[in-house]
Amino acid sequence: MAFPRPKPTTMETLAMERANPSFNVRKMSVAMHGSERALILKEKFMAEIARHPAFKLSDIHDLSKDELRERTMEKFASMVYFVTNESIETFQLRMQLIGIADPSFWTRFGVAYGLFLGALRSGATPNQLSYWIDKGVLGLNGVIGCFAMTELAHGSNVAGLETTATFDRGSDEFIIHTPHLGATKWWIGGAASTATHAAVFAQMIIDGKKHGVKTFVTQLRDTKTFTLMPGVNIGDIGKKMGRDGIDNGYIQFTYVRVPRAHMLMKHTQVSRDGVVTDPPLAQLAYGALLGGRTSMVTDSSNSAKKALTVAVRYAAVRRQFASGKNQLETQILDYPIHQRRLMPLVAQAIAIGFTGLRLTAMYEDMTQTLDAMEPSDPNLNDILDKLKETHATSAGLKAFSTWACLDTIDKCRQSCGGHGYSAYSNFPLMYADFAVQCTWEGDNTILSLQAGRSLVGAWGGAVKGKKLAPGVAYLNDSSLISAKSDSSLSLADIQRAWNCVAYNVIKKAAEEYVALLKSGKSKDEAMETCSQSRFIAAKIHTTGYIFRLFKEAVEEMQDNEESKTLRMIAKLYGLWQIEEQQGYFLKYGYYNAQQMDKVQASVDALCAEARAVAIPLIDSFALSDHIINSPLGRWDGSVYESYFAQVQAANPLPKEHPYFTRLIKPLLERTNEDMEDPGTAMGLEDELREIAEERKGE
Amino acid sequence: MAFPRPKPTTMETLAMERANPSFNVRKMSVAMHGSERALILKEKFMAEIARHPAFKLSDIHDLSKDELRERTMEKFASMVYFVTNESIETFQLRMQLIGIADPSFWTRFGVAYGLFLGALRSGATPNQLSYWIDKGVLGLNGVIGCFAMTELAHGSNVAGLETTATFDRGSDEFIIHTPHLGATKWWIGGAASTATHAAVFAQMIIDGKKHGVKTFVTQLRDTKTFTLMPGVNIGDIGKKMGRDGIDNGYIQFTYVRVPRAHMLMKHTQVSRDGVVTDPPLAQLAYGALLGGRTSMVTDSSNSAKKALTVAVRYAAVRRQFASGKNQLETQILDYPIHQRRLMPLVAQAIAIGFTGLRLTAMYEDMTQTLDAMEPSDPNLNDILDKLKETHATSAGLKAFSTWACLDTIDKCRQSCGGHGYSAYSNFPLMYADFAVQCTWEGDNTILSLQAGRSLVGAWGGAVKGKKLAPGVAYLNDSSLISAKSDSSLSLADIQRAWNCVAYNVIKKAAEEYVALLKSGKSKDEAMETCSQSRFIAAKIHTTGYIFRLFKEAVEEMQDNEESKTLRMIAKLYGLWQIEEQQGYFLKYGYYNAQQMDKVQASVDALCAEARAVAIPLIDSFALSDHIINSPLGRWDGSVYESYFAQVQAANPLPKEHPYFTRLIKPLLERTNEDMEDPGTAMGLEDELREIAEERKGE
Repeated sequence: MAFPRPKPTTMETLAMERANPSFNVRKMSVAMHGSERALILKEKFMAEIARHPAFKLSDIHDLSKDELRERTMEKFASMVYFVTNESIETFQLRMQLIGIADPSFWTRFGVAYGLFLGALRSGATPNQLSYWIDKGVLGLNGVIGCFAMTELAHGSNVAGLETTATFDRGSDEFIIHTPHLGATKWWIGGAASTATHAAVFAQMIIDGKKHGVKTFVTQLRDTKTFTLMPGVNIGDIGKKMGRDGIDNGYIQFTYVRVPRAHMLMKHTQVSRDGVVTDPPLAQLAYGALLGGRTSMVTDSSNSAKKALTVAVRYAAVRRQFASGKNQLETQILDYPIHQRRLMPLVAQAIAIGFTGLRLTAMYEDMTQTLDAMEPSDPNLNDILDKLKETHATSAGLKAFSTWACLDTIDKCRQSCGGHGYSAYSNFPLMYADFAVQCTWEGDNTILSLQAGRSLVGAWGGAVKGKKLAPGVAYLNDSSLISAKSDSSLSLADIQRAWNCVAYNVIKKAAEEYVALLKSGKSKDEAMETCSQSRFIAAKIHTTGYIFRLFKEAVEEMQDNEESKTLRMIAKLYGLWQIEEQQGYFLKYGYYNAQQMDKVQASVDALCAEARAVAIPLIDSFALSDHIINSPLGRWDGSVYESYFAQVQAANPLPKEHPYFTRLIKPLLERTNEDMEDPGTAMGLEDELREIAEERKGE
Repeated sequence: MAFPRPKPTTMETLAMERANPSFNVRKMSVAMHGSERALILKEKFMAEIARHPAFKLSDIHDLSKDELRERTMEKFASMVYFVTNESIETFQLRMQLIGIADPSFWTRFGVAYGLFLGALRSGATPNQLSYWIDKGVLGLNGVIGCFAMTELAHGSNVAGLETTATFDRGSDEFIIHTPHLGATKWWIGGAASTATHAAVFAQMIIDGKKHGVKTFVTQLRDTKTFTLMPGVNIGDIGKKMGRDGIDNGYIQFTYVRVPRAHMLMKHTQVSRDGVVTDPPLAQLAYGALLGGRTSMVTDSSNSAKKALTVAVRYAAVRRQFASGKNQLETQILDYPIHQRRLMPLVAQAIAIGFTGLRLTAMYEDMTQTLDAMEPSDPNLNDILDKLKETHATSAGLKAFSTWACLDTIDKCRQSCGGHGYSAYSNFPLMYADFAVQCTWEGDNTILSLQAGRSLVGAWGGAVKGKKLAPGVAYLNDSSLISAKSDSSLSLADIQRAWNCVAYNVIKKAAEEYVALLKSGKSKDEAMETCSQSRFIAAKIHTTGYIFRLFKEAVEEMQDNEESKTLRMIAKLYGLWQIEEQQGYFLKYGYYNAQQMDKVQASVDALCAEARAVAIPLIDSFALSDHIINSPLGRWDGSVYESYFAQVQAANPLPKEHPYFTRLIKPLLERTNEDMEDPGTAMGLEDELREIAEERKGE
């Protein structure tokens, strides 16, 4: 049946949105990707996976958990090739893309490379590293690793893990043991059906004395037969909210022996005699967390851009309600409220994207500095300060970026109305896959409080006149305490607004903390008691930080149409967030009520400005139809046709109704006489017949 | 393997939380359910479904979409018995419970009874109603109905639906037709594999003239064989975010004929000659929407309570981090930040619950008034005003209650850390099932704007001195414009705070609207342009409304321990929401900065107060372990044991690894020599070997 198409078609509508863009989409895209090389590599990666059968995405919503897992495993071989033959930098860009195309595979692959190999890189001695490389850890030919940290009863409190590793001096071995149910290793990605080895975190016990949690490489399965090693019990932990392509499992150890040399000894060493040597600079371990957090900030931006690509394109082609006598209905993106729903989120995704680029550069810089640093370095304290500050800031950035992204995905879903609830819109899977980012690598609330704790500390330093690290240097400027807007709402004014308010909320948290100490509370109690204020401090500081990094990036750009557009976007982000957090700006008097009305009016106007370039802006995110995997966000605008085709393809009519004869037919054909009247209560039938009788009399 | 249990066990911990509650849990529970009868009925319903095999819930996370649908159908027969033999009131309470136990079944059953039968009740003439009752619509013995309103390209804009119903005078029939792809009926619950008939919404066309959208009962399938009727094409729209137990489908009609008498003619009538008679009081149709919205407010409270039961019980038994030298770790519910995460949400769920009870009473009252009303009633205008006001308020309540609940579910999930991401925690399904509530029966943003439009109108009336309906009567009190707090933070002070701020934000929206009209915009354009302010007006008004209804309910209670606790909860809800929206309270000067600090400190203190009674309070929600279906929220506190048992039961070990031989073994056993070196780029292996070499030199 050939259906006629209403005019203009959705495809024509989208084409019109792309006519005469006010900036060069390619140049904008290069700016957003940090370099032309990064963009070209991404395009190459996208083309590769779009053509690879294992990376088929359109049918993913109707696969069972078992099918998803098997397909996820199919991808390993192709990626192992790249990992062993590409530079780390290129491979990281590749994984960044995989992260949004296929989060399950990203996790399953990342467990082997990011976590297990990462544990070796950061914890193994050079000889140990060579040993595992020889075993085949890099090509997965011989060793497939997983990361056994979390336990059923312990997640955030790593120091409280209860698996034990008891040194047996006689055999020069550690005995790995799960003492009770709560100490079962839980959530271990890759354990259920992929891994041969695990980096096991366990309490090291020597001569009855606990030495804290260390890492022990433990074999889980025979590499030839895949049967479990003696004393190792592994189960599948089954269905999850999302990422069902990764086989999370649980592991219980019953007196499993590993050679002493399988304890990773770069930091703490244990000698043949059981003598323990602790590392000189424990703080350096902070560095290891930075990489993961940085990549999560970038992933938050990319995942939000993916959702927004769908929602914005759909809003441009969806028409609803004709105004006046106009036959043609209005594009929903033309409604001010719909612009309000989406445009600030677009600005936020772009802001976090630029933050991710700068953070990555800072992280690489930091890694080089740390690698080159000697314990005798005269700048040691400065470097450690900067490391601590970056570490704390990255905690806040991880938390607020992942929250922002999760929120964006669901708002995008809602903005597509009912169709957003269809699995084929891809929003449900995006949400379900992304949701765990708010939990793993540190629960967001706990990370926010860590960031807040560091800000309270920085404040204490500032009061004592200490020159602070760049990320919190504004705390050295006490004139911020009562700063006022010049009413310009310029980028500089907005920056000062964030500094002023961040200054004041950090001050409030710090003063609460000091007062609690004075009232006799311990440091820990005082920190817990002021946690709400610490949380607010982290939230405001982090938002201001994102704004600052975005602003810096934009101001470094040449003056052209692209940077002009990005300045507008930066303003939208900064002012919209001021509106969202307006209470603090009013409370500390940076803006008064009239200025706040002006902020609201400016956000309205900027949303309309952003709407005018919405499609070119979204196009510059450079996400292929294969990656976004949603007919609602098709590049060519053939939304309804593609959606209908995908729904039909995914749901072929069964030859026979699966349960008509068993369940529906008896219902349709039964008569009321077959069951005795059970009692006196007047049922719906009686009541409705009565109503019908009454109405007849009307 | 018998694991030792750490002491105190999670079960002992939960028992201690229940020792010496400060109020009577049963009495509290009665208060929350509105009456002892309602509570007892609920307990009866819970026991019935816990024992019914079709209502098994523990294995639901691992069923496929097809299995879920078949099981959902199994429930029909048992419920049909009740629907025909129970009073409507009792049955509605039953469905309220089903709504949170099994949202898919609630939907599938509700399509037949709430929507299809509802369309008949509100749209059929008495003779038509009798005809369909005789056909068997009440017992589903002969007719299983569905509700064919939404189309692929039209959802919110019902008047813009494009399916046509063209009157054929010759045969006295209407011809139902889908003119193009976008007019395909879409999302039709029950269409894919359950319904025999549909209430089809279509543009009525008589002699080439459109008469607007009317409803036509159209047969879809032969009731004996279930084959599709000629000209009817139905497909399955497949996987959704949640509610996969309901078979949503699409329907395309190709010139399908129905007798003229199948058009529902209670309101608009079409005579044998094609003469159209329109109804005298179109506004009365408003009443039909109220019931659905009221039930969604109640469902929001119940669903939030279900999630909170899990999160709060888990927080009471989960221990993480020991403070000081204490071996026993702290219950996470004892951390102030965790109280901040959950206690305000508990207060909100309770507040919305009481709002639901009062709204239901108002709705029943309104229905009686409308049923008894004659067009000549001297109070007609007052009644219509009140109906319009309640209709607008219910739009805002539906929107903000469902958003609040969705937000609560995800916050509860996050508060359970990694375990919240397990399907067996039940949060993923709760979220996925509930999410659609923000979209159907009117997209929340659009409903909020409807509420805002009505508030702008009410403001216009107040300015002209008109006495307003009770829900917005505070707009008659112009002293609110510059009201100030008496610093007491009493319930009365909080109520006045909400009235003051609601007054001011509505005033702002109304003044913007008037100014836009003066600038030459049309009414529609002006309304769209001020939509952000309208949205804010609806948000603040609705929150204040919920607070007021909760406060009224609590103040009507006898003075006892239960009401004392509820007053504390009301205060927590009111002040926490003030904190959340603090910008407006500061902007309009009801609270100053110091008072706002006091608000924050009070919320902290109230969270601690609520924490002290958290478990008894949660127990009074009266939700069985079967309903909450989450080991993390077990009544007896045996969290880890039950969770482990459920994970094991749901994931038996396969006899053979499904893809070891095909995928893993070749990976483990391959050698690098089998593939030629593809080029010069330095791969990870080279880079790591270099690092290892360098380190050896350190």
